[in-house]
Amino acid sequence: MASIKNIAIIGSTGSIGRQTLEIVHSFPEHFRITALVAGKNTVLLEEQVRKFKPEYISFQGPEHDMGNARFLPVKDIVSLPEVDIVLMAPAGTAGLKPTLWAAQAGKRIALANKESLVMAGDIINAQIRKSRGQILPVDSEHSAIFQCLKGERKAAANLILTASGGPFAGYTREQLAKVTPRQALRHPSWVMGPKVTIDSATLLNKGIEIIEAHHLFGVGYRNIKVLVHPSCVVHSMVEFKDGSIKAQLSYPDMRFPIQYALTYPERWANDRLPRLDWDSLEPLSFTKPDTALFPCLELARNAGIEGKTYPAVLCGAGEAAVEMFLNMSINFLKIAPVIEQVLSEHTPVSNPDIDVIEEEARRAYQRAKEIGAG
Amino acid sequence: MASIKNIAIIGSTGSIGRQTLEIVHSFPEHFRITALVAGKNTVLLEEQVRKFKPEYISFQGPEHDMGNARFLPVKDIVSLPEVDIVLMAPAGTAGLKPTLWAAQAGKRIALANKESLVMAGDIINAQIRKSRGQILPVDSEHSAIFQCLKGERKAAANLILTASGGPFAGYTREQLAKVTPRQALRHPSWVMGPKVTIDSATLLNKGIEIIEAHHLFGVGYRNIKVLVHPSCVVHSMVEFKDGSIKAQLSYPDMRFPIQYALTYPERWANDRLPRLDWDSLEPLSFTKPDTALFPCLELARNAGIEGKTYPAVLCGAGEAAVEMFLNMSINFLKIAPVIEQVLSEHTPVSNPDIDVIEEEARRAYQRAKEIGAG
Repeated sequence: MASIKNIAIIGSTGSIGRQTLEIVHSFPEHFRITALVAGKNTVLLEEQVRKFKPEYISFQGPEHDMGNARFLPVKDIVSLPEVDIVLMAPAGTAGLKPTLWAAQAGKRIALANKESLVMAGDIINAQIRKSRGQILPVDSEHSAIFQCLKGERKAAANLILTASGGPFAGYTREQLAKVTPRQALRHPSWVMGPKVTIDSATLLNKGIEIIEAHHLFGVGYRNIKVLVHPSCVVHSMVEFKDGSIKAQLSYPDMRFPIQYALTYPERWANDRLPRLDWDSLEPLSFTKPDTALFPCLELARNAGIEGKTYPAVLCGAGEAAVEMFLNMSINFLKIAPVIEQVLSEHTPVSNPDIDVIEEEARRAYQRAKEIGAG
Repeated sequence: MASIKNIAIIGSTGSIGRQTLEIVHSFPEHFRITALVAGKNTVLLEEQVRKFKPEYISFQGPEHDMGNARFLPVKDIVSLPEVDIVLMAPAGTAGLKPTLWAAQAGKRIALANKESLVMAGDIINAQIRKSRGQILPVDSEHSAIFQCLKGERKAAANLILTASGGPFAGYTREQLAKVTPRQALRHPSWVMGPKVTIDSATLLNKGIEIIEAHHLFGVGYRNIKVLVHPSCVVHSMVEFKDGSIKAQLSYPDMRFPIQYALTYPERWANDRLPRLDWDSLEPLSFTKPDTALFPCLELARNAGIEGKTYPAVLCGAGEAAVEMFLNMSINFLKIAPVIEQVLSEHTPVSNPDIDVIEEEARRAYQRAKEIGAG
């Protein structure tokens, strides 16, 4: 095994951040937490600081030190020379700037934030190439594809993203009109944050992942397919030029892709990760998604194909729509039309810089809120 | 793509040989048939010679040329300096010597003959290392494992061979006692020669593949598992140290692994190979094999673990037992006991050379015939 790796976690109190700390805790001789960055959950952050003793911290609110940990702005944390891996897990569009900074600093980025690549994939990839940094996917689907591509990346023909289908697969339009936030938050297979859980139910998440896969693997949009696979055991697949397919399997548990991103290119034994029990495993089924009932999937793909500022608008409007659904100001079936309207009203900006991208996402968020309230 | 590759096919008139010629025919600018070796089917061989114009041929029977093709002994054919790849597909124990000769000649061997590695894996591997040759698996299961290991061979923890279960999966002992050769030859998924089709029905084939996998990939017997997967879409899997699993999928069609062995490490597009139709695909199920009703699986694994001349005895006795079942001198349920008795009577020879291995396989064949007649 390699020497000790210094890790900075951006978003340490979220679902991915907490599971990353679990993995780190499993290999105390191989990983050290150099920095923790959180949002407003300073209670949990203080607990994490006591346990993992980072040198640096950052959080939203007035600057102050916790124990011996020094407060440092996020931009400085992701650029610390001693940091080997930045685990990037802020929620939503807030991940854009930190990801860009880490890319500029030439870091190995274990990327759990989809929105940064979706909104600014070209800019971040250009920075990564310039700084000789690296992005390792943490999303289970993209980790699966990354694993399947190992050793023969250039031979890939099609990527096949699997989707759980969310809690409402098989629902009728009438049933969908009545679903509550509480029902939508009860994901059948994955334990995730609220935003991505709702996005799973609408398939917006899978559409966003199409754009993410495009930027991560350089594969054209028409060569990225989606299959609904409710048991979430096959995390995604790659079809190679000769028609042969490779798939990656495990129980749905984010600790697998998190650990792989931290140990790559090695794989480390970890008895705490659950092994597949073939005796109890249901047969694995795969079906085409219902894009009429779940239009967010193709809305997102088309935003990716159109490029420019459309993906930023998609993300901004999507965040607003999910918030409005969660606070019950719009119903489930209104999520897609709200996003679609914001996209259709948008005047795209070619070759946008990061500030334009952020601004357009913010505007789209506002516009979606207006439409939802109207 | 690479320059033209010269191929010698050993066993060109069998099922694998014919499908190899189909692949070669798909890429006339990349493959050339240098030599064809057949058994007694000289009618088909003459047809193949007319179409593929090899420089050399070999077959059983009096030496004579076919057209411009010169007759040459098999040993000379597999050693021809101009041959890049030897596709090794003789049936059963007859593959031993040709595989050894090709290994000594340092060839890239696309190996479809299981018995050679099973009976003499240590000897053949030692020759391959010495001559800097290479074995590429053609068996669909071993090709799948080989593909899944690409880029991270050392990270493998367990190999998972999938088995169709054959035509009699789910049968009771009473039903098995009455099955006819005609029923056994009707394999539900694969089109194969008669020997391997019967071995699929008894699971002896899967047991032999455990030994083959051991020699191909250097994985211990206890780390090679078997799962019954009737639809034969997942061809095998690798479980890595971290618990993550990779699987390789395609319709059951031997042209996939044959082509991969010929184009490795590249993958070439071939529109004649069928693509998976997810709309019509049945859910993929995996169950543990019934080793009480199909004892050949563990008979073979144990022969592999004991080593020495036991695997040769397994192969020799297995060939005799299948022949006796096909000519209806023993019933299906007697196949395993016949093999088991020959194994239990055997006095093993340590570090056997090739002649001893061949001799013990021959003796086991004879002894099985005696037991079957008794």
